[in-house]
Amino acid sequence: MSGLPGEFDLIARLTAGLRPTRRVILGPGDDCAILAPGRKRQLITIDSMVEGVHFKLKWGSPGALGARALAVNLSDIAAMGGYPTACVVNLALRRSLPMETVDGLYKGLRASARSAGVDIAGGNITSAAQLAITIAMLGELRGAALRRDAARAGDVIYVTGTFGDAAAGWRILDGKLKAGGLNRKFLAARFLRPAARLQAGQALARMRPAPAAIDVSDGLLQDLGHILERSGVGAEIDPDAIPISPAYRSVMRGELALALTGGEDYELLFCIRPGNSERELTARLGVAVRRVGRIVRGRPEISLVGTRKQRLPIRTGFDQLR
Amino acid sequence: MSGLPGEFDLIARLTAGLRPTRRVILGPGDDCAILAPGRKRQLITIDSMVEGVHFKLKWGSPGALGARALAVNLSDIAAMGGYPTACVVNLALRRSLPMETVDGLYKGLRASARSAGVDIAGGNITSAAQLAITIAMLGELRGAALRRDAARAGDVIYVTGTFGDAAAGWRILDGKLKAGGLNRKFLAARFLRPAARLQAGQALARMRPAPAAIDVSDGLLQDLGHILERSGVGAEIDPDAIPISPAYRSVMRGELALALTGGEDYELLFCIRPGNSERELTARLGVAVRRVGRIVRGRPEISLVGTRKQRLPIRTGFDQLR
Repeated sequence: MSGLPGEFDLIARLTAGLRPTRRVILGPGDDCAILAPGRKRQLITIDSMVEGVHFKLKWGSPGALGARALAVNLSDIAAMGGYPTACVVNLALRRSLPMETVDGLYKGLRASARSAGVDIAGGNITSAAQLAITIAMLGELRGAALRRDAARAGDVIYVTGTFGDAAAGWRILDGKLKAGGLNRKFLAARFLRPAARLQAGQALARMRPAPAAIDVSDGLLQDLGHILERSGVGAEIDPDAIPISPAYRSVMRGELALALTGGEDYELLFCIRPGNSERELTARLGVAVRRVGRIVRGRPEISLVGTRKQRLPIRTGFDQLR
Repeated sequence: MSGLPGEFDLIARLTAGLRPTRRVILGPGDDCAILAPGRKRQLITIDSMVEGVHFKLKWGSPGALGARALAVNLSDIAAMGGYPTACVVNLALRRSLPMETVDGLYKGLRASARSAGVDIAGGNITSAAQLAITIAMLGELRGAALRRDAARAGDVIYVTGTFGDAAAGWRILDGKLKAGGLNRKFLAARFLRPAARLQAGQALARMRPAPAAIDVSDGLLQDLGHILERSGVGAEIDPDAIPISPAYRSVMRGELALALTGGEDYELLFCIRPGNSERELTARLGVAVRRVGRIVRGRPEISLVGTRKQRLPIRTGFDQLR
């Protein structure tokens, strides 16, 4: 016996006291939620986090897990340059899950949604062998969209933040990489508490022409590969230009593999016409921006340049299905 | 090894050749899909089907499973009186799943979406221990909404179609109930191939005042209970008035439990001011409609009347989490 109440009671309990914005005409508790008509182009995405595949419960608090499930969806909205509006949440619960875990998870989800201005418009609960949180997120475009197919030869490739932290943090949490003290704390937090780059994406969407962009969830090279495929171009990347954190540098001792191919960073990678400096872009986006390479004519391939010359087929990053 | 290609390849393969309507500005393949602005109030719902919880693969074809995953979401749109527009699909795939199963599933999903006029705007794929299909469905309201909180004392309670077939079919497929020949075929098909009552819901939404309605996924009594709770009323139901099919009658030999509490029928239950005949409503809704009881003042309880008098607490139906 699970100690879990029935689905209807549980949804009522988890969504009690939600304070929806005016865009929600009817919230959780009916067959569908009703949203007010939007005048903007709408964004929609769906993403899922599965226990044992994407996380282990013992790695962090249930609240952080709920917040992370929302953040990975917000990151997709950020990568389009959009503004998140509302979401619906499907929880798959295993019978052995303590009720406090479910409550904590939803509490984190609700707090994150509130701080991102996102309405939790509805939900569904099912039983399953693994805990899984699947969120469909709506957003709106107020200007241009940041599309994967917009990269052009000559564009400069930039990234926000630092790379490899989350992948290192995952391995530390999973006992496969050793780190202590502040390094451990920082890298684990980068995995457990990713921040979607919403403001950065929105700032990029105000630039003309609108950059191509993607959020880096599978690894820098793999996600850049998606842009190359959709845009029909190649890229040159200087591995030594990829921004890494002091904690990553210390723990990985200069090994760049995770920075190049580790996933879960939820930073933005974007391609933009030349003529912007790192400093200007950093000020505009509100987050550190670094130039890592450029888009070139040719097949969708990535050439590593600088001191680590190598030509790579795309899709070399993290792929959970392999 | 699964034989499954990576997520990006797989989504590209499954969504190749989709012919989106004009409402889809950008379909699968980017961080989000982009939809044209809608002028109507929007509906959104999410539902999930999990292997071993809601179905077993050996019970039917992968294509029927894909169609069913869509139908249970369409049924939520139907229960609001809405028109489905677009959906996003999350597939959780286990490694041992043959690629033909995934292809077949998506083929059924696509065919159903096309015939319902629904765009598959995007998707996500993850690995998991169980196959699960989670769909978030968007729709629009062109008139009133059919809400659970709109039932008033004096309303007559009607249902579409017949009840208990899907629950009997489930038990037959699972080897827990014996049936042969056409009875088996009919009841199994009622479980495997539910039809969302979209036209019936849309016709109800054109009536004034708009009826209260719900789709019966958890069982007639339990889902009626949701209307009673949300509306703050009670109900009288005559079990002998509940429409059952000849196959159900033959296999269940007059036992009404599954018709009252078995789920998965995806018929509509609605509550409407007196003054409509079954015949008028059947003509208007395009599906057989039967009167099964009435809404009364008082606490949200269901009184069974007629030859089977009994007072029931609500939530007596199927509840997969118990």
